[in-house]
Amino acid sequence: MSEWGHGHPSGAGRGLFLSLEGIDGSGKTTQARMLAESLRGRGHEVVLTREPGGAPGAEEIRRLLVEGDGARWSPETEILLFNAARRDHLERTIWPALAAGKVVICDRFADSTRVYQGAVRAQLRAVVDSLHRLMIGTEPQLTLIIDTDPEAALLRGLARPGAEDRFERFGAAFQAALRGGFLALAREYPRRCRLIDGNRPPEVVGAEVLAVVERALSGVARP
Amino acid sequence: MSEWGHGHPSGAGRGLFLSLEGIDGSGKTTQARMLAESLRGRGHEVVLTREPGGAPGAEEIRRLLVEGDGARWSPETEILLFNAARRDHLERTIWPALAAGKVVICDRFADSTRVYQGAVRAQLRAVVDSLHRLMIGTEPQLTLIIDTDPEAALLRGLARPGAEDRFERFGAAFQAALRGGFLALAREYPRRCRLIDGNRPPEVVGAEVLAVVERALSGVARP
Ligand SMILES: Nc1ncnc2c1ncn2[C@@H]1O[C@H](COP(=O)(O)OP(=O)(O)OP(=O)(O)O)[C@@H](O)[C@H]1O
Ligand SMILES: Nc1ncnc2c1ncn2[C@@H]1O[C@H](COP(=O)(O)OP(=O)(O)OP(=O)(O)O)[C@@H](O)[C@H]1O
Ligand SMILES: [Mg+2]
Ligand SMILES: [Mg+2]
Repeated sequence: MSEWGHGHPSGAGRGLFLSLEGIDGSGKTTQARMLAESLRGRGHEVVLTREPGGAPGAEEIRRLLVEGDGARWSPETEILLFNAARRDHLERTIWPALAAGKVVICDRFADSTRVYQGAVRAQLRAVVDSLHRLMIGTEPQLTLIIDTDPEAALLRGLARPGAEDRFERFGAAFQAALRGGFLALAREYPRRCRLIDGNRPPEVVGAEVLAVVERALSGVARP
Repeated sequence: MSEWGHGHPSGAGRGLFLSLEGIDGSGKTTQARMLAESLRGRGHEVVLTREPGGAPGAEEIRRLLVEGDGARWSPETEILLFNAARRDHLERTIWPALAAGKVVICDRFADSTRVYQGAVRAQLRAVVDSLHRLMIGTEPQLTLIIDTDPEAALLRGLARPGAEDRFERFGAAFQAALRGGFLALAREYPRRCRLIDGNRPPEVVGAEVLAVVERALSGVARP
C-alpha cells in the first residue's frame, strides 16, 4: 500500500505501461490484440485492457459514459467520470500488473480525454490537465498513436455493429479535428508518443508497432 | 450559457442557496422537509434537493456510490464520483433554480465530502479542496449544521429501513470523528455555517432553523 492507499502511484513499476491512441476506427483495438498476442508468444506476461473501463467498477462508470444520448453529461461532468473510471482502473488493474512486472497494453488512456475534450472546447484542456495531475499522475512509458485518415476510419467504424456509439456520431469534420489533436499531442510529448501510419494493412501496421515496442522492452527507447 | 457551458457558474444567483449538514441520523432530511414546507407557506419558490443525486444523471452516479460494499471504491475514486454527481446536480438543478430566484435547500453538499473524506484520511482534505476549486466553485450562502450527539443519531438512523447503508456501518467512533469534523468546519467558515443543536425535538430545531433562514432571506445574515 502506498501513500495513495492502493497499488502503485507513479506508474514506474517494473513492468511496461503501453497505450494505444487514435481517432475512432483508426485500428487501436485491432493493434492492441495483435500486440498482446505477439508479446505473449515471446514469453511476456501481458495485461490487455481498455478505457473507459478495465476494472469492474470502472466498467460500470463506462456504461454511464457510453450509453444514452450525447447531451447526457456536460463536458465537465464527463471529464470527472472519465477520471473516476481511470483512477479505479489504475488501482485495481494497471498498478498491480506493473508492480508484478507485466506488460500493460491499454486501448486508450488519458490522451483520449485530452484530445476529445480539447476538441469539444479548447479551454477544457487545462481542466483535463489539472485534474490529471491531481488525481491520476501516471502516464504510459510509451504511447502508440495510430494515425489513420479520418474518412477511412469513419467508414471502418460505421461498418461495425454495437450500441456504444455515443462518441462516433460526430462525423468526418470532428474526426479530422481529433486527428489534429493527436498529431499535436505527439509533438507535445515526443519522447513518450510514436506516430504509426494506420493507413496500411493490419499486419503491416502491427509489424511496426511490435518493432517499436520491442525497442522499448529492450530499454533503448524507454524514457 | 456561461463560459462553463451550463447554467450559473458562481452560485450567486438571485435565489438563496442553503445546505443542511451533519452526521448520519442527525436530522438533516427531517429539517430540510420542514423548512421547505415553512418557506413555501410564506410564498417562496423552493427547490428541495439532496446529495449525492438531485438530478437524473447525478442520481445514477449516486447508485454507484451508495450501493455495494464499503471497499467498492477507493477514497480517491469516491471523491471523483461525488464531484461528478455534484457537477451534474449544479448544472441541471441548482444553478437554474438560483437563476430563477428560487430558494434551493440541499440535503448535504460539498461539506459532507470535506468532512467524510477528511475523517477517512486527513491528507484527503487537500485533494477534496483542490478538486472543489477546479470543478465546482459554488458554495451555499448559508449552511445549517445540525449538531446531534453521535450515539443518539446512530440509534435514530438504525431505526430506519433502507438498503443505502454503505456510509452508516462505521459505528459510534467514526460518527464522533465526523461530528468533530463538522464542528471544525463551522469554525473554518464562520460566516457561512451556523451550528444548530439537534438534540431537541424536531419542531424546536425547526423553529431555530427557520429563524436563521428568515434572517438570511431578509439579507441580514447573507454573506
Ligand atoms: N489497418 C486496417 N486496415 C483496414 N481495416 C482495419 C485496419 N485496422 C482495423 N481495421 C478494421 O476497422 C474497424 C475498426 O478497427 P478497430 O476496432 O481496431 O478501431 P478502433 O480504433 O479500436 O476503433 P474505436 O475507436 O471505435 O474503438 C474494424 O472493423 C477493424 O477490423
Ligand atoms: N430532532 C429529532 N429528534 C428525534 N428524532 C429525530 C429528530 N430529527 C429526526 N429524527 C428521526 O431520526 C431519524 C433520522 O432523521 P433524518 O433522516 O432526518 O436524519 P438525517 O440526518 O437525514 O440522516 P441521514 O444522514 O442518514 O440521511 C428519522 O427517523 C427521524 O424521524
Ligand atoms: Mg476500439
Ligand atoms: Mg437524510
